[in-house]
Amino acid sequence: MLLSEIAKELGITFEGEDKKITGMNTLQEAEQNQLSFISNPKYTKQIPQTKAGAILVPKEATELVPSTCTPLVVEDPYWCVAIVSKLFAPPLEDETGEVVVGEGSVVDEKATLAKGAKVGKNCHIMAGVYVGSNTEIGDNTILYPNVVVYRDCKIGSNCIIHANTTIGGDGFGFATNKQGEHKKIYQNGNVVVEDDVEIGNSVAIDRAVFGSTRIKKGVHIDNLVQIGHNCEVGEFSVMVSQSGLAGSTKLGRNVVLGGQAAAAGHLEIAPFNQFAARSGITKSIKQSGKTWAGFPLYEHKTWLKLQGKIAKLLKQ
Amino acid sequence: MLLSEIAKELGITFEGEDKKITGMNTLQEAEQNQLSFISNPKYTKQIPQTKAGAILVPKEATELVPSTCTPLVVEDPYWCVAIVSKLFAPPLEDETGEVVVGEGSVVDEKATLAKGAKVGKNCHIMAGVYVGSNTEIGDNTILYPNVVVYRDCKIGSNCIIHANTTIGGDGFGFATNKQGEHKKIYQNGNVVVEDDVEIGNSVAIDRAVFGSTRIKKGVHIDNLVQIGHNCEVGEFSVMVSQSGLAGSTKLGRNVVLGGQAAAAGHLEIAPFNQFAARSGITKSIKQSGKTWAGFPLYEHKTWLKLQGKIAKLLKQ
Amino acid sequence: MLLSEIAKELGITFEGEDKKITGMNTLQEAEQNQLSFISNPKYTKQIPQTKAGAILVPKEATELVPSTCTPLVVEDPYWCVAIVSKLFAPPLEDETGEVVVGEGSVVDEKATLAKGAKVGKNCHIMAGVYVGSNTEIGDNTILYPNVVVYRDCKIGSNCIIHANTTIGGDGFGFATNKQGEHKKIYQNGNVVVEDDVEIGNSVAIDRAVFGSTRIKKGVHIDNLVQIGHNCEVGEFSVMVSQSGLAGSTKLGRNVVLGGQAAAAGHLEIAPFNQFAARSGITKSIKQSGKTWAGFPLYEHKTWLKLQGKIAKLLKQ
Repeated sequence: MLLSEIAKELGITFEGEDKKITGMNTLQEAEQNQLSFISNPKYTKQIPQTKAGAILVPKEATELVPSTCTPLVVEDPYWCVAIVSKLFAPPLEDETGEVVVGEGSVVDEKATLAKGAKVGKNCHIMAGVYVGSNTEIGDNTILYPNVVVYRDCKIGSNCIIHANTTIGGDGFGFATNKQGEHKKIYQNGNVVVEDDVEIGNSVAIDRAVFGSTRIKKGVHIDNLVQIGHNCEVGEFSVMVSQSGLAGSTKLGRNVVLGGQAAAAGHLEIAPFNQFAARSGITKSIKQSGKTWAGFPLYEHKTWLKLQGKIAKLLKQ
Repeated sequence: MLLSEIAKELGITFEGEDKKITGMNTLQEAEQNQLSFISNPKYTKQIPQTKAGAILVPKEATELVPSTCTPLVVEDPYWCVAIVSKLFAPPLEDETGEVVVGEGSVVDEKATLAKGAKVGKNCHIMAGVYVGSNTEIGDNTILYPNVVVYRDCKIGSNCIIHANTTIGGDGFGFATNKQGEHKKIYQNGNVVVEDDVEIGNSVAIDRAVFGSTRIKKGVHIDNLVQIGHNCEVGEFSVMVSQSGLAGSTKLGRNVVLGGQAAAAGHLEIAPFNQFAARSGITKSIKQSGKTWAGFPLYEHKTWLKLQGKIAKLLKQ
Repeated sequence: MLLSEIAKELGITFEGEDKKITGMNTLQEAEQNQLSFISNPKYTKQIPQTKAGAILVPKEATELVPSTCTPLVVEDPYWCVAIVSKLFAPPLEDETGEVVVGEGSVVDEKATLAKGAKVGKNCHIMAGVYVGSNTEIGDNTILYPNVVVYRDCKIGSNCIIHANTTIGGDGFGFATNKQGEHKKIYQNGNVVVEDDVEIGNSVAIDRAVFGSTRIKKGVHIDNLVQIGHNCEVGEFSVMVSQSGLAGSTKLGRNVVLGGQAAAAGHLEIAPFNQFAARSGITKSIKQSGKTWAGFPLYEHKTWLKLQGKIAKLLKQ
């Protein structure tokens, strides 16, 4: 899509040399054929370094835009992200594309492989499963009944995904205007599940807004777990039932979240940290190998001590 | 159904003029052709004003029943509500009723439209979806794979409902006798989802016991969210993943519930209130536009201050 | 399978008389044709009483093994449990086995009854439902659309299971080695749901690792509830939305868990205890009929008093 066409959709005058734009991305990740945006003043300092071919910016930030990047000056860049995201959204299902099923795989006749879906060898795709267009499943993987994998995702080999789980649903993203109305930001990324991952029942792992949500090798996820868009769950990490990650949080390897524990968005958790059931994580953790509990979060032994102190209030 | 027939089902003697009863409802909402009940003494004062045609009452409250309303005197009115609710429950699926699919809509051959289901124009009903009898879907709405909408519900236009979500499942209602046994109260209401609503994966929105559970225009609901029977979620409100509402709670417009936040039943929350992740709301909130946190709930800034005070206990 | 074959799979030398082993079980439950194991030193004292035909033990515990039980000496017994569990795992679906549907039952053509599935009389098996091999459904039971019941489970009569719920998914079990890698422990038990049980939408009830997870007569379970492997939910107990039980916890009769409440694993809760919303239960409760709240858990009235004391900290 031409940048001039995007400008037209946004109802703004386009000046300068036109260029082809193939998608959107963040300031740090965007490449020359992508459109970026500045929605939060704290990222303003990243503008001069961006490699994006174009950027949605408010007037006051145009001076920072490098010469390789064409500014589209708008009043509310995030609202414009929502508008543009729809332009790049693929169809729900492709109309063409070969369906490939590897040797030894069993695909139940009540399962659906959309156009362009690819299933490896010796897989078991059970009744009621849906595999979207351009999604690839590795070898020896089991999708239990009624699992849904949205389009463009990748599931590794030797994975087990249990019934009624959804991989690649839309991340929870929208812009809000001053009247409080929302506009959906289309989630044009995907989910990548690496090898040897097991995922329980009724889990929701959202696709990335740009790029990938990633579940790394050997991860075990229990039932009813939520993983937001653009998260990364490190190798051999464990998420117990009803735990959750808000968007863009990254767990290192062998992190354990107990039942109903949850982390806020945009955090980084160092490897081998363990969180007791119902921990509430709101800050990044740089040290490895500690055990935590509570909300607000404390080291587990401190939390226990604190609960003792709190109990003593009853005697006052 | 005749009131005398209902009395017979309850095993009580019926006296007076018979009348036709078409359903049940609360004291405040019941009309002349409906049966009401008094199950909680705190509603006793509403009896004289009821427009219900008949009422299940304990003996001691019969004096309060207005002359337009026939009392059915019973020992345990709520248990009787359970018995009678079953009499008014429709079949799981109708045996007749035209299935209507509007122009431009795509209904996957692995989806099910029960008798009497109506789908508007340009919708996308994907594989494994179930749309119940007498349920209506507006225009341009997408139901992702394996979404289930129970019978008699209404989904608006321009809605997106993600995979494995259930709309219109039975509310959690039952009567309990002195032996601790339960009897299901059939949930004969429905769910109404207005236009421009997006609902995530594996969400559960229960149908009303009487009347409607209502999700108003422009609401955004994340994954794994629970909405109990007879709730109302106001325009442009937002419910983040794993949050929940118990029955009959009403959120005003632009209310935000953070992840894992929850509200007890029968509350009213004024517009533009925001609740941090894991807030526990147990009282109605009349003021608009505040930010809250914690359980018990405090204003967010107070909660932060309180956590500071609690942390100081460690030094005592 | 012969014990010598199991030893071979584990790469250990087998000595002594060979015997036929038909499965695995705990020290207390194992019978003469079963293999047991010791994975936690606190169970070492149970070794002398075991009736197991063989046991996976570390070298230092071999002296305790009774003469009826053949020791398989291994370095990491729990890792070996994982390896052996796979040997006893049945296929996802049987290739033979009569499908039985009782008189008066309606099975939607879009439902799947795997080989060996048995449905009683007057049931309603709706579209998209999956009933696994060797699973039995009683009479008058309703499975709403897209319910999945894994193989080898039993569902009673007069049950209602709502849409998108999964019964019998694998319990969350794996062994972890010193490198932090996990190996799945196959869950070869089942789930037994007794009569008159109602289960909401998107609930996950895991099958037992050995034996049965059991939901007893008259239980009511709300939406999005998690029940771990080997739990037992007592007669007429109630679990409100988003509550959860970790593995092997047993609730007595008429226990009530409020919304988002949860219990840790391996607990026993006496009958008629009630837990307020978001209670966190970490210890067994021997007294009946009390009301609890909070995390850490207090008696409800004490918790209320404590919250008052905590609030006073704001004034200090």
